[in-house]
Amino acid sequence: MVKTVVLSTLVASIVMASPLMKQAKDAGLVAIPADAKELRKLVDDKRNPMTEAKIELGKKLYFEPRLSKSGLISCNSCHSLGTAGVDGLSAAIGHKWTANPHHLNSPTVYNAVFAGSQFWDGRDPDLEKQAQGPVLAPPEMAATREHVVEVVNSMPEYVAEFKTAYGKKVKIDYATITKTIGNFERTLVTPAPFDKFLNGDEKALSSAQKEGLKTFIDKGCATCHTGIALGGSMQAFAITGKYKYADIGDFKGDKNGLVKVPTLRNITQTRPYFHNGAIWTMKEAIQEMGRIQLGQTITDKEAASIEVFFTSLDGEKPEVIFPMLPASTNKTPLPNIK
Amino acid sequence: MVKTVVLSTLVASIVMASPLMKQAKDAGLVAIPADAKELRKLVDDKRNPMTEAKIELGKKLYFEPRLSKSGLISCNSCHSLGTAGVDGLSAAIGHKWTANPHHLNSPTVYNAVFAGSQFWDGRDPDLEKQAQGPVLAPPEMAATREHVVEVVNSMPEYVAEFKTAYGKKVKIDYATITKTIGNFERTLVTPAPFDKFLNGDEKALSSAQKEGLKTFIDKGCATCHTGIALGGSMQAFAITGKYKYADIGDFKGDKNGLVKVPTLRNITQTRPYFHNGAIWTMKEAIQEMGRIQLGQTITDKEAASIEVFFTSLDGEKPEVIFPMLPASTNKTPLPNIK
Repeated sequence: MVKTVVLSTLVASIVMASPLMKQAKDAGLVAIPADAKELRKLVDDKRNPMTEAKIELGKKLYFEPRLSKSGLISCNSCHSLGTAGVDGLSAAIGHKWTANPHHLNSPTVYNAVFAGSQFWDGRDPDLEKQAQGPVLAPPEMAATREHVVEVVNSMPEYVAEFKTAYGKKVKIDYATITKTIGNFERTLVTPAPFDKFLNGDEKALSSAQKEGLKTFIDKGCATCHTGIALGGSMQAFAITGKYKYADIGDFKGDKNGLVKVPTLRNITQTRPYFHNGAIWTMKEAIQEMGRIQLGQTITDKEAASIEVFFTSLDGEKPEVIFPMLPASTNKTPLPNIK
Repeated sequence: MVKTVVLSTLVASIVMASPLMKQAKDAGLVAIPADAKELRKLVDDKRNPMTEAKIELGKKLYFEPRLSKSGLISCNSCHSLGTAGVDGLSAAIGHKWTANPHHLNSPTVYNAVFAGSQFWDGRDPDLEKQAQGPVLAPPEMAATREHVVEVVNSMPEYVAEFKTAYGKKVKIDYATITKTIGNFERTLVTPAPFDKFLNGDEKALSSAQKEGLKTFIDKGCATCHTGIALGGSMQAFAITGKYKYADIGDFKGDKNGLVKVPTLRNITQTRPYFHNGAIWTMKEAIQEMGRIQLGQTITDKEAASIEVFFTSLDGEKPEVIFPMLPASTNKTPLPNIK
């Protein structure tokens, strides 16, 4: 066993001789671990360790529309697992068809676990904390903590599952409910051909994808789109030019004007782009980024090449068996669409 | 093979000696076939025979929000497979948060294949035709035929799947898209303990469930809630009394005033009840039905007993692997939330 590990490490080292692989690693790009145990350790939350019981329960709650005031909106409404973890809209739409008041775009939930912080202004440190926000936000799920707690506790199947997950004395409160959702979200990672490449498989990328990767790094994109998420940190925005669509919405970043860098994983599937979802084509997104972040022109040819590289970030999504949710009881609060 | 069939028929006949089973069958109650092939034959559509390719594609389209004008609403929004095929609302909510103008409740899609006709006024004969309606209805998905056809044809993965399902020369038009959705919906049947009972397993129901079944038949409920769907036909409504909530909405039935009888399968999971979703408890629904359809008082005890019988209609839902939908392309129409 030990010998095998040593040998494979050695093989990996030899393969790593490829100059592009070295350049990518030097640029700070990091692979999703190929080893399942290593990956699980990486995404796990020590304060609330992942278990199958919590993940299954968290999945149900992620799809649970009755957490919302209307009974219509779940986490999956804006971060649909079927459409790469997004809603495909410019700005999110929530309770009573209200658009996000800052005209903010719903970021993908896939690989969100790899981000340094959550929300466009990075105000929450992790998925567990993040999950507390949209459920209560009036233009999103518009619920109250009391509503959520009452809904979950009204259904014996949920109560039983919480007991299985956390022990018989569990208090099914808002924090426990939302942290269970976060626990499920930690499973939503999508290993891609790019990871195979970084992990040493030279053939995992086509030559066009490799050329695009090189352009991507050479142009400086990996300065911000780096790490395992190819994004996820807070950065200054529009530093070398004014953002073309700055007038859409009133989002100004965090207190220091910093904006969360979106992950590039599955980026070919998550249009529209930018925090205000104003850009609908990859080409325009790449060129606008070059102009306002790097102070340089990215030609059509270069943009096309980078776009080809992005296809290597299309990952394999975990299989999700659509959860069958418990039936409402006479104690379950009625939906309120007002 | 022939011998086996004869023998099992014989065994079934012997078991059918149970008086309650006989009473149930005499009342017109019919089991979902236990045999998978027999069931498939029963639900299949000769004009568009079910195939795995069509079913898989139909499932994607069932979950496809981009068919709607807003890009937000799919068939599954109002007929969610995770919540027994309904939305749990009084009246359906659609595009721009518009409530159904007649205050009609979304009926369950599960076992809808067994209904004699579709919609509360029975205006469509089958699931394929039904699927054409809500996609175009302004208060529902608010799309146009052209939008739907353009969306589907804009994604090469869909085009390829239609070719696999229907042959290379397929014309991916509105009728073909919606009939594929119908094809998937034909798979949504939920065999329950009650079917095992009707198929000869005396022990499939508890004695309380059997007592409830007897009350159900004796009271006359099976007059309308009969057949394999325990419902699904068009019947006169409020014939022995005025419906308590007749003033909610303006639905008056079909041209003859007839109203579709909802299936009782999974009825414990599909509140609220009646065409206008005005009744939130099973007990009130049962008693109101007794009063306005059968002209008799159903006591609390009788209603409770019938309610216990209904738990035997909670069926096993088919496992649905949540479909990963194709990425939009630059040709995919943009969502329009207005």
